[in-house]
Amino acid sequence: MSKAEFDQRLADLKIELPAACQPAGNYRPALLIDNYLYVSGHTQDDAISEGFSVGKVGDEVMFEQAYKAARDIGLAILASVKQALGGDLSRVERLVSATGVVNAVESFTQHPQVMNGFSDLMAQVFGKERGVGTRSATGVASLPGGVSVEVTQCIFKIKAPLETLE
Amino acid sequence: MSKAEFDQRLADLKIELPAACQPAGNYRPALLIDNYLYVSGHTQDDAISEGFSVGKVGDEVMFEQAYKAARDIGLAILASVKQALGGDLSRVERLVSATGVVNAVESFTQHPQVMNGFSDLMAQVFGKERGVGTRSATGVASLPGGVSVEVTQCIFKIKAPLETLE
Amino acid sequence: MSKAEFDQRLADLKIELPAACQPAGNYRPALLIDNYLYVSGHTQDDAISEGFSVGKVGDEVMFEQAYKAARDIGLAILASVKQALGGDLSRVERLVSATGVVNAVESFTQHPQVMNGFSDLMAQVFGKERGVGTRSATGVASLPGGVSVEVTQCIFKIKAPLETLE
Repeated sequence: MSKAEFDQRLADLKIELPAACQPAGNYRPALLIDNYLYVSGHTQDDAISEGFSVGKVGDEVMFEQAYKAARDIGLAILASVKQALGGDLSRVERLVSATGVVNAVESFTQHPQVMNGFSDLMAQVFGKERGVGTRSATGVASLPGGVSVEVTQCIFKIKAPLETLE
Repeated sequence: MSKAEFDQRLADLKIELPAACQPAGNYRPALLIDNYLYVSGHTQDDAISEGFSVGKVGDEVMFEQAYKAARDIGLAILASVKQALGGDLSRVERLVSATGVVNAVESFTQHPQVMNGFSDLMAQVFGKERGVGTRSATGVASLPGGVSVEVTQCIFKIKAPLETLE
Repeated sequence: MSKAEFDQRLADLKIELPAACQPAGNYRPALLIDNYLYVSGHTQDDAISEGFSVGKVGDEVMFEQAYKAARDIGLAILASVKQALGGDLSRVERLVSATGVVNAVESFTQHPQVMNGFSDLMAQVFGKERGVGTRSATGVASLPGGVSVEVTQCIFKIKAPLETLE
């Protein structure tokens, strides 16, 4: 799939990416090394500037809001990936791994279902073969800015440039 | 060591692997890419369907139960690794890294000792040279299903196929 | 930059590394595999034996202490990296990723600023191009020994030996 075909695919899916976010500290949002793209922690406010979820899931934040937060984080990550790849998401070969954390009350048990918000988006964008990778989802005691969900790391395999002999 | 020799080694160690688990969400239990096997988060109920530990370590769950949970998780991970490698664990070159989390009371301090349940099993199965890798062990506020321990990610190096020129 | 030049650079920066630490369990502090160095979880007491921070950040531990803890952890990690590379830190090509966790009260929100203690050190030691990688910083409920901060994993790219054709 070419860059133009991939952009058309996103348009057909009615998926619009936010602007690439600024890092919250002394780090890079994403780093390409040896055909692997490492992605830093992203939160929902990297995708939307208003209406993002703050607070404990299972208390003031409902499950549906947490699922949406995970999906919005996926959109912010795609924006960072696109920027790191010179604007061309079609260079992604596949999602390798992702780590999600939920700022939840101690009795919360549905971390995997929240993280599906991220995973369902990736499967939609890259297809079930290339968009579904390995994953974990656990519960943290606090998060930057008090947000409800974070995807702390993900790794994508990137296609080798055509001119490269491997 | 061949597949048959490795299976004999497990039998000699009286180590029996559970059936490979089903993922709890939209992800793969393990993914082989470029001779690295990435493994998703696994919990004790991926190894045993009854008698797994639920609740806070340091409160209703004792240290010995948490150590056993970490070991059982190692067995579940070996089952996923075996499945991803076409049934042949002898293709594992070595353990590279593992990340463990303990659903513990805030005063709990023995996370590394709990995680040894996983690490001791890997050292037993693959030997001290190949079975001991890098690691972390920290404390989380909540876990899927309320379980006491999770190994959230591990990475194994896999031997290159004989027919591959590197 | 040669080993001698790198050692001089550290001396000019007045950065003195601690002795390489002993692992707290059945694992290796660092592992070199295919030109990537995986580093295990490190805590401040891996760098200094007295005066390290124990307890919750945002309660009995102040922000400035947590920032210093993250920086001290960076020094301990550099000691482990140096040992794994046969004493030669100039073999580091770049920092790829790092994961930090803060043992904080639930209302704490400045995890990225704490983790900057680690990241600022890496930028100082390796320069902004090679020392700034991807990262996350979240809040945990408990840590080994009750310490306030841990860098749970980091990955460095290591230069290929001169004799290797890639």
